[in-house]
Amino acid sequence: MATALGQTEVYSLLALSLACLGVLANTFQGDGEPLIASIAFSGLAFACCYALVRWLGDAFMRRGFKGKDMCKLKQTEIPETMGAVCAMVYLFTLVIFIPWPFYKDIVAATSGGGNRDVMRELGEVETGRLLHRFPHNKLASYLSAILSLQCIVLLGIGDDLFDIRWRHKLLIPVIAAIPMLIVYFVDFGVTQMVVPTPLRPYLGELFDLGWLYYVYMALLSIFSTNSINIFAGINGIEVAQSLVIALLIVANDVLYLTPFTPYPHPATDSHLFSLYLLLPFIGVSLALLKHNWYPAKVFVGDTYCYFAGMVFAVDGILGHFSKTLILLLLPQGFNFIYSAPQLFHLVPCPRHRLPHFNARTGLLECSRVEFERPLAQPIAEGLKLLHRLRLLDVETNEKGQVLSSSNFTLINLWLVWFGPMREDRLALGLLAFQAGVGLLGLFVRHRMALLIFTADNW
Amino acid sequence: MATALGQTEVYSLLALSLACLGVLANTFQGDGEPLIASIAFSGLAFACCYALVRWLGDAFMRRGFKGKDMCKLKQTEIPETMGAVCAMVYLFTLVIFIPWPFYKDIVAATSGGGNRDVMRELGEVETGRLLHRFPHNKLASYLSAILSLQCIVLLGIGDDLFDIRWRHKLLIPVIAAIPMLIVYFVDFGVTQMVVPTPLRPYLGELFDLGWLYYVYMALLSIFSTNSINIFAGINGIEVAQSLVIALLIVANDVLYLTPFTPYPHPATDSHLFSLYLLLPFIGVSLALLKHNWYPAKVFVGDTYCYFAGMVFAVDGILGHFSKTLILLLLPQGFNFIYSAPQLFHLVPCPRHRLPHFNARTGLLECSRVEFERPLAQPIAEGLKLLHRLRLLDVETNEKGQVLSSSNFTLINLWLVWFGPMREDRLALGLLAFQAGVGLLGLFVRHRMALLIFTADNW
Repeated sequence: MATALGQTEVYSLLALSLACLGVLANTFQGDGEPLIASIAFSGLAFACCYALVRWLGDAFMRRGFKGKDMCKLKQTEIPETMGAVCAMVYLFTLVIFIPWPFYKDIVAATSGGGNRDVMRELGEVETGRLLHRFPHNKLASYLSAILSLQCIVLLGIGDDLFDIRWRHKLLIPVIAAIPMLIVYFVDFGVTQMVVPTPLRPYLGELFDLGWLYYVYMALLSIFSTNSINIFAGINGIEVAQSLVIALLIVANDVLYLTPFTPYPHPATDSHLFSLYLLLPFIGVSLALLKHNWYPAKVFVGDTYCYFAGMVFAVDGILGHFSKTLILLLLPQGFNFIYSAPQLFHLVPCPRHRLPHFNARTGLLECSRVEFERPLAQPIAEGLKLLHRLRLLDVETNEKGQVLSSSNFTLINLWLVWFGPMREDRLALGLLAFQAGVGLLGLFVRHRMALLIFTADNW
Repeated sequence: MATALGQTEVYSLLALSLACLGVLANTFQGDGEPLIASIAFSGLAFACCYALVRWLGDAFMRRGFKGKDMCKLKQTEIPETMGAVCAMVYLFTLVIFIPWPFYKDIVAATSGGGNRDVMRELGEVETGRLLHRFPHNKLASYLSAILSLQCIVLLGIGDDLFDIRWRHKLLIPVIAAIPMLIVYFVDFGVTQMVVPTPLRPYLGELFDLGWLYYVYMALLSIFSTNSINIFAGINGIEVAQSLVIALLIVANDVLYLTPFTPYPHPATDSHLFSLYLLLPFIGVSLALLKHNWYPAKVFVGDTYCYFAGMVFAVDGILGHFSKTLILLLLPQGFNFIYSAPQLFHLVPCPRHRLPHFNARTGLLECSRVEFERPLAQPIAEGLKLLHRLRLLDVETNEKGQVLSSSNFTLINLWLVWFGPMREDRLALGLLAFQAGVGLLGLFVRHRMALLIFTADNW
């Protein structure tokens, strides 16, 4: 892999950076629109991440962060764990961005100097404020989000370094979620949820989940990180699926911020908060995708999957749209449930479950697991049922014994459905599926929610 | 190195942990004294760190984090970078500790649920509060401290992994200080300093440093981290010097919190804040020192030096006693200035400047640098002057040309002064020196400050 940037790349990145810096400089005049600043910062983050991934690749390989691409004819070694670079650029961007949404609002309300927080009245916070400005107390939430993300990057690097065992890996997102949960507890502490209309006679309008709410949030971060981590294996799929999800959340956020939306809306701040976290994420992920897309020049490592999953979890929890997030992660959820028989060893699980590269055709085929010992009767029947439902490809002998099946991942299932194809076609197909399911989810969430809730909060 | 804990160790650590958990459980009754909780957490952090350093040593060595002890007869390889483990335990402790100083105060002031911050009045915050409780706005400072520390750990690990160049190393603490500085800017923003009496006619009572104050804070973190990093080289010295400094700061903090101190004192909160950061640091450092003291079973790595230096910088800046901190770092400062001729290549600088191990006597002797080319006249004269002042050991030939000198570090100077000695005696001597200078510094700070300021803030 070339470690220097080409001339066109240098000029493009410089032009982009200068444009973004210009926009940023402009925000100092007038009100310092934080949303515009966030977009400019995302552009800068893209440029930084793009250059750093290129420059640092060699250093990573020298230190043993490297791997072979098993789905290629020529299996040269390429840098691994480059998601760490991307995550560092992201975190740094979030930190530098702090003064834009938090500063001016505060200065306006105090005479400057000393503790600027205690002088604001509740009414002033709720009414006298411009769009895009946060009340100061959101700062703690914002900082706790950065802390949790930094924590998952540290633990993710630890995982990539030391190859932590599977059952310990599950704990990583829980540990990383702790800073966010503790600050949520100290700072906000709302653990009530709105009860769907049919259940109201029994539970009332609001139901206080209490400490179960924290368990729910911890589980959400486990789900979000690990489901992205196991929906992986072909070039670009980890980054691209994260980008699709991020874009869908952004679309959902924008629904709350358009000029047509009644203002002030109670959820406006939450969705601005979400945008501020997601826009730089989109910036750094695009830069990484440019290097990780077929044919990949770098791998992203578990670090990226943890990091991306945690960005979504933090965003959903602190932006108060965790149920919408789950809708957007449905393909990942399906892949997880579909994988469960192999993950929990009901069916043998080979070391790698990525598709099989056919060197003759250059196409990917679904990879198979051979059952050396006959399967237990109920499991064998279950597999045959899945075969009949076109949810698995099972090979049987003349006696009806199950000899082998395709591996239990959505990627292999896609190949079962549509036959062998090239790696980038496969990734594009899966991404289209992800986008379709997500759009449908958003439609359901905003159009059908009235069937079980009294009001869509949009 | 044994990777399992001995039976006595297991029982001792368990007993300590249980005792600490008991104390913690007790804090739930009554007021939940955060200071007591902090002490209990420090005990727990000690136990965790002690066990983890032992358990993870092998994994670190397998991944290439290992080094040879050059001051021993038998140079076996031992784990390196164990400071990272210690730092992770510390950060985790700080996060878990958050509800103790921040929660109850807030709940008491609101009806629970929703935004708990905006309902408090300035007067209430200043007067109606128990000792050991923080106003809520300190949470942002506390979180920014954790962010900066986590950031330096990430960058420190990066440094230990990739061997960053010296001039880039200097930037690491500046980058890590950014989260703290930005939150300081947004949240507090006081950049005035009290002017010493003799200068008041010219500058007034308070002088606003403006952005220079941020430069000062960034420089303080560079100084604090790097000065600890270069005062290193023999077993235990990095950790033990940090412990001595931490204990001296704790002693200074306690001065403001004794029952004899007039209360409410304006600096009480700042010094409690400082204690909450330092007590767990002392816990984890003691655990690390137990493994790093002569004969060392693990090395701490640059990560620990960065981490410890940053703890002091954060503590001094957010606790508002940065000038006192500089007093306590005088031996490090002296070592830095003393090293400068070699660091800036006025005089040749060998790859390693640690003392020379004499295999025959088993003692350490001062290491020397040979000047293969004759030195420039003024430099040679300077060295001879230092020799006459007993600040260097210079060897000359009959013509008066300088042939060699002892290396320019405080450790070598100590050996010049007191002759060859065993490694642990050397470390103890230097630590006694550090403690003596520090105590003198504190005495000067509290007794002599009135000579140039109108009031000691104690």
